[in-house]
Amino acid sequence: MKAARFHAASTILIETIPEPPPPNPDEVTIDVHWGGICGTDLHEYICGPMVINPPERPHALTHGHLPVTLGHEFCGRISQLPEDNTSNLTLKVGQAVMVDPRINCTTCTACKSGNSNLCLNWGFIGLNGGGGGGAGFSEKVNVSSRMVHVLPESVDLNDAVLIEPLAVARHALSAACIDDFSGLSVLVVGGGPVGLAVLYNLRAKGVGQVFVSEPTARRAGMVRDLGLAEEVFNPLICSVPEECCSRTDGEGVDVVFDCAGIPVGLKAGMDSLRVKGTYVNVAGWEAPLTIPLQFAMMKEITVKFSMAYDDKDFKEVVADFAAGKFAGAGKMITARIALDDLAVKGFDELITKKDEHVKIVATPRAELLS
Amino acid sequence: MKAARFHAASTILIETIPEPPPPNPDEVTIDVHWGGICGTDLHEYICGPMVINPPERPHALTHGHLPVTLGHEFCGRISQLPEDNTSNLTLKVGQAVMVDPRINCTTCTACKSGNSNLCLNWGFIGLNGGGGGGAGFSEKVNVSSRMVHVLPESVDLNDAVLIEPLAVARHALSAACIDDFSGLSVLVVGGGPVGLAVLYNLRAKGVGQVFVSEPTARRAGMVRDLGLAEEVFNPLICSVPEECCSRTDGEGVDVVFDCAGIPVGLKAGMDSLRVKGTYVNVAGWEAPLTIPLQFAMMKEITVKFSMAYDDKDFKEVVADFAAGKFAGAGKMITARIALDDLAVKGFDELITKKDEHVKIVATPRAELLS
Repeated sequence: MKAARFHAASTILIETIPEPPPPNPDEVTIDVHWGGICGTDLHEYICGPMVINPPERPHALTHGHLPVTLGHEFCGRISQLPEDNTSNLTLKVGQAVMVDPRINCTTCTACKSGNSNLCLNWGFIGLNGGGGGGAGFSEKVNVSSRMVHVLPESVDLNDAVLIEPLAVARHALSAACIDDFSGLSVLVVGGGPVGLAVLYNLRAKGVGQVFVSEPTARRAGMVRDLGLAEEVFNPLICSVPEECCSRTDGEGVDVVFDCAGIPVGLKAGMDSLRVKGTYVNVAGWEAPLTIPLQFAMMKEITVKFSMAYDDKDFKEVVADFAAGKFAGAGKMITARIALDDLAVKGFDELITKKDEHVKIVATPRAELLS
Repeated sequence: MKAARFHAASTILIETIPEPPPPNPDEVTIDVHWGGICGTDLHEYICGPMVINPPERPHALTHGHLPVTLGHEFCGRISQLPEDNTSNLTLKVGQAVMVDPRINCTTCTACKSGNSNLCLNWGFIGLNGGGGGGAGFSEKVNVSSRMVHVLPESVDLNDAVLIEPLAVARHALSAACIDDFSGLSVLVVGGGPVGLAVLYNLRAKGVGQVFVSEPTARRAGMVRDLGLAEEVFNPLICSVPEECCSRTDGEGVDVVFDCAGIPVGLKAGMDSLRVKGTYVNVAGWEAPLTIPLQFAMMKEITVKFSMAYDDKDFKEVVADFAAGKFAGAGKMITARIALDDLAVKGFDELITKKDEHVKIVATPRAELLS
């Protein structure tokens, strides 16, 4: 089968590799319909391998290492069940499914305490091996049945691939440890893919009011067009803290989601928070994350960190997606390409035209592009 | 009267200044028995004025500025009530009292929401003026009756001055947002004055088990002698995270109180925490507080900041002190000196023999030194 495999930074090759073996008793084989390019994939392409395992350090659970089939955001249809259905799977061939691509040990303290996202040996099909050699950017992939979420036929499988990045954002909301967002004011720093996914989740959760800080006109325009925020501020031409305070009786917002991961955004975010507000970091950081103590101490800000998502987040987002709570989220997909074009029309495009895109998705199935 | 006044870094002068005026209807005059030297005072002495107001920036509420009478940790006895007791004060001349020295506006959002420690115009008698010209390092001081906590005669007034630093530490426990410490493992980074005060509070709150990281033999010995921790680790000769993990079934401690404020302590502290643990910063920082993301993200650590104390903390500590829950805390006082000797035997001593001291207290009353 066809698969996009990561060999080294700047080197993703479309190769012909063996199809996954027949699924084990607790597995199914999926025909991939769509795979999405994630920021982590892009990071690997620019300066990896980072999360991807080199040969001298294979993944503890999958034993996978370079080269690996890429793609951990993917949906499709079940194409094969295990021959001996000793696990009594209720799944059926042909069902539309979204896959939780996480690999975790299920036995460490984190896993056993419901924090499987913090498993000591966490990984993803599409970065760390597994999948019977396949992943989101190949024709087929084997996945454990417990990772499979069946979608009702009412769900548009063309958009369902977004469930994974939406789950990342849902976890950021969970990480804030706030039960009810309805009366709250929120600032989202950064209107890129993660910021938009946070905004869709905030809308799904019924947030009070939400502001966005985004310097690029294109992304700011997109947030405005999608109607996801009360206001979008350009931090290059206004004071985001002042704008937030003036709209919250001078107090500042209750929560900041940092989806940018840059020092100037962190500083403005903390300055925008009210006394005892919560700052949630969802971003990856290239610069050191240095806390501006003048805000953190003087306002006793709580700082939270959000890492991937757990079983509950994924289930919730699947349910909310099926229930139509993410209506319009399909607009986050700014290009649909063929798997064959993944490197040039996908990764290179995201690097050279970063601000024009949110999510690029690829398919190995020509009929889906017609 | 005699008063120790801060004029500039390295310049604390014992001067004769007017006694405070007769107290206003909501005030009383206190005869100071003991005043303690705080880390903030020392910081001012070394490189101030920092918190102390220069003439061009007087305090918003007291209008005080350089030179200021020092001393914000102080206890004594009421020596004068207002002539017209229109505020119906129930206080009596001669009562032993501990004073909450904070200045706050009572009207800002922080004050009105019970977070008076985060008042926009916070200050302290002894740093920012007020007190009728007096403070903890003078013979007399005027204070608002709402700042006065009457102590039962069973309390040793020689030690009651410790209530203020103990309240700072109590607030750190409150800031952790943990109701019950009884089943928890805690690491205190730094066995100096703040660390010891945190340890006394943890004991008063019935903590499960507590470890201390402290590199100096003298301070480590003191923590051991006082019996305040299960174990004291020397971070220069062992791995504190490994020691903590080996004593917590490999999981790490639940809470870290950072009472050191140095990058290597922060890193070891976060590495010592369990998944989803809480890191509380009580320390002042001279270096930037840079978060080690490999721990913060991968374990989703919650970072909290603790700033001074609020009304509730102070009341609780007064009550606990009166109830004997801080028995032995008097050992934190490592020198008692005359007010006249404050600069040389107090501040200079704390600089040159830092590790030999925890708290130095001074009195303007010769009879208390006999």
